[in-house]
Amino acid sequence: KHILVIPGDGIGPEVTTWGKAVLEKVGAAGGHEFTFDEALMGHAAIEATGNPLPDETLEKAKASDAILFGAIGHIKYDNDPSAKVRPEQGLLKIRKELGLYANLRPIMLFDELLDASSLKPEILRGTDILFFRELTGDVYFGEKKRSEDRNTASDLMIYHRYEVERIATKAYEAASARGKRLCSVDKANVLEASRLWREVVQEVAKNYPDVETEHMFIDNAAMQLVKNPKKFDVVLTANLFGDILTDEASQIAGSMGMLASASVGDGTGFFEPIHGSAHDIAGQDKANPLASILSVALMFEISFGLKEEATKITDAIDKVLKDGYRTGDIADANTDKAKILGTTAMG
Amino acid sequence: KHILVIPGDGIGPEVTTWGKAVLEKVGAAGGHEFTFDEALMGHAAIEATGNPLPDETLEKAKASDAILFGAIGHIKYDNDPSAKVRPEQGLLKIRKELGLYANLRPIMLFDELLDASSLKPEILRGTDILFFRELTGDVYFGEKKRSEDRNTASDLMIYHRYEVERIATKAYEAASARGKRLCSVDKANVLEASRLWREVVQEVAKNYPDVETEHMFIDNAAMQLVKNPKKFDVVLTANLFGDILTDEASQIAGSMGMLASASVGDGTGFFEPIHGSAHDIAGQDKANPLASILSVALMFEISFGLKEEATKITDAIDKVLKDGYRTGDIADANTDKAKILGTTAMG
Ligand SMILES: CC(C)[C@H](C(=O)O)[C@@H](O)C(=O)O
Ligand SMILES: CC(C)[C@H](C(=O)O)[C@@H](O)C(=O)O
Repeated sequence: KHILVIPGDGIGPEVTTWGKAVLEKVGAAGGHEFTFDEALMGHAAIEATGNPLPDETLEKAKASDAILFGAIGHIKYDNDPSAKVRPEQGLLKIRKELGLYANLRPIMLFDELLDASSLKPEILRGTDILFFRELTGDVYFGEKKRSEDRNTASDLMIYHRYEVERIATKAYEAASARGKRLCSVDKANVLEASRLWREVVQEVAKNYPDVETEHMFIDNAAMQLVKNPKKFDVVLTANLFGDILTDEASQIAGSMGMLASASVGDGTGFFEPIHGSAHDIAGQDKANPLASILSVALMFEISFGLKEEATKITDAIDKVLKDGYRTGDIADANTDKAKILGTTAMG
Repeated sequence: KHILVIPGDGIGPEVTTWGKAVLEKVGAAGGHEFTFDEALMGHAAIEATGNPLPDETLEKAKASDAILFGAIGHIKYDNDPSAKVRPEQGLLKIRKELGLYANLRPIMLFDELLDASSLKPEILRGTDILFFRELTGDVYFGEKKRSEDRNTASDLMIYHRYEVERIATKAYEAASARGKRLCSVDKANVLEASRLWREVVQEVAKNYPDVETEHMFIDNAAMQLVKNPKKFDVVLTANLFGDILTDEASQIAGSMGMLASASVGDGTGFFEPIHGSAHDIAGQDKANPLASILSVALMFEISFGLKEEATKITDAIDKVLKDGYRTGDIADANTDKAKILGTTAMG
């Protein structure tokens, strides 16, 4: 299999190094070989080419069997609302161009990290959520406008039936294969796009009579996720709401540094940690590489159907955590100081 | 002063009864008298008149000095995405018609309830957040469309400079009078409306050099609110993001049943609990009336400048909680069963 590695910005390169290393090691142990290529995206690509997603990167992406991505973004653009070219455009464009409409974000709970969360252990224990976030529609991709006098700005929140149908189908398939409960999150009491969303989900639900469906408003969902995360099995939601809920849910897993994601759809799968570029700690050997390594586990399972390899990786992480090793983000007051590791040692 | 009471739907009438009773008692004790009127809104109004906000209600609202509202919504509409008339339209319309552009949602922490939260007490202790949620713009009020074949639906997320300016000014005034830190939440890395938002906030910030400003993306904010709520003082955000964040933040206070809100702007102030209509417990004497009572405290302080009356109310609640009394939503395993009260007893 041919893998494209896109290190991206900030801590992206450091963590991706370890994702790639694990891919090679675990692959080789199982007799699977990989070839690799590398490409630019985001701020790194703007600096080199002026374009957050160079054509070359897109071509390489299309020609690969799977993509391992790091992180995107740069503080310089965040505080300049008038910048025309932005790192994030690279990520949004590659999602769209590759038809990566389904973003899977499993909230995995390592027992050893129960205490690393701000939530009480008894609230967390037993939580196992799989988010399906729609990734190529919504207010992310609807038309953006700024009036000539620059005093009015808008973004169109828009959904088409087929967009909801295809991700709902994927989410129901997954729900049917696991806890058989699906919670669809929207704001149908206010938004027309959400009303279409709810209609279509209600239709797709009919094909999965074994799955229990619940519809929840986004405000309520944001609350329930903190109050009682155990109540969720599969959560299906739109692009913007999914962005918000999955970041919030990262606190269930103790840290953003533990969460991986898989973006799939029409072609090549795209695997990335949920965390961002974290420029404040970039290049300091402080970043947690486990989310990148867990993204590789998802790649084994989802892109290559190698469930065993995926399990090897999560088992290894489990062991490392049981042995008491932590990166700074998942360490707590009880962690043996000598066992707080940098990116390299943890990798 | 003349107060309009709008009980609304579900548990609205039960909790509002107690808000009103406290308003009268505390008012009378301080030599303030109130006259009252009542009006319909939401599902209750649809049933009676076909209109979620009858003209009569709006006229009475405009003629009053303050409005005490209960809750809105009915499950029947939630699962019918094609309904043309919905309870929520009443609430949205009255916000718009009265120019209630600033929704203040203080996250108050009663010490006695530290254990009622799903968050660890040491994470919570010391938290004191005041949300300023914009209330008359955003995707809530932008144009809604459904294609003729009904396969495409959209809502326009739109902001005008003056809308951001006026709420930002209110939020900075508040920040300057309290912790002197303001966090503005947006999604400026993706949304044009957020970029305008950030631009305007940066401008308004210049008038408040004593206030420290931070800009945060909504996904990160949803995470930080769980991870480290203490880091926030005043949070300023748009309508949709504010809806989500404040519900999430309710878990800091232990329960939705403890959170009050004040909506202010051009004219009459509007006071309501954050919780919804909760039809599942309506009419069963189970609802927590404290959020309605705390809304009355906000009314005393904000609409009538009677800070002392407001303090009397929060002190009384503090005492009741210290004495061990709880409604079901804020009871925990350690609560004396005999001290778990219904709506009436707590009121
Ligand atoms: C960087 C940003 C554009 C992106 C998003 O909002 O989708 C990120 O937050 C994510 O969740 O992948
Ligand atoms: C009922 C609904 C329309 C409303 C909103 O979304 O504004 C509610 O959730 C709130 O927060 O007041």
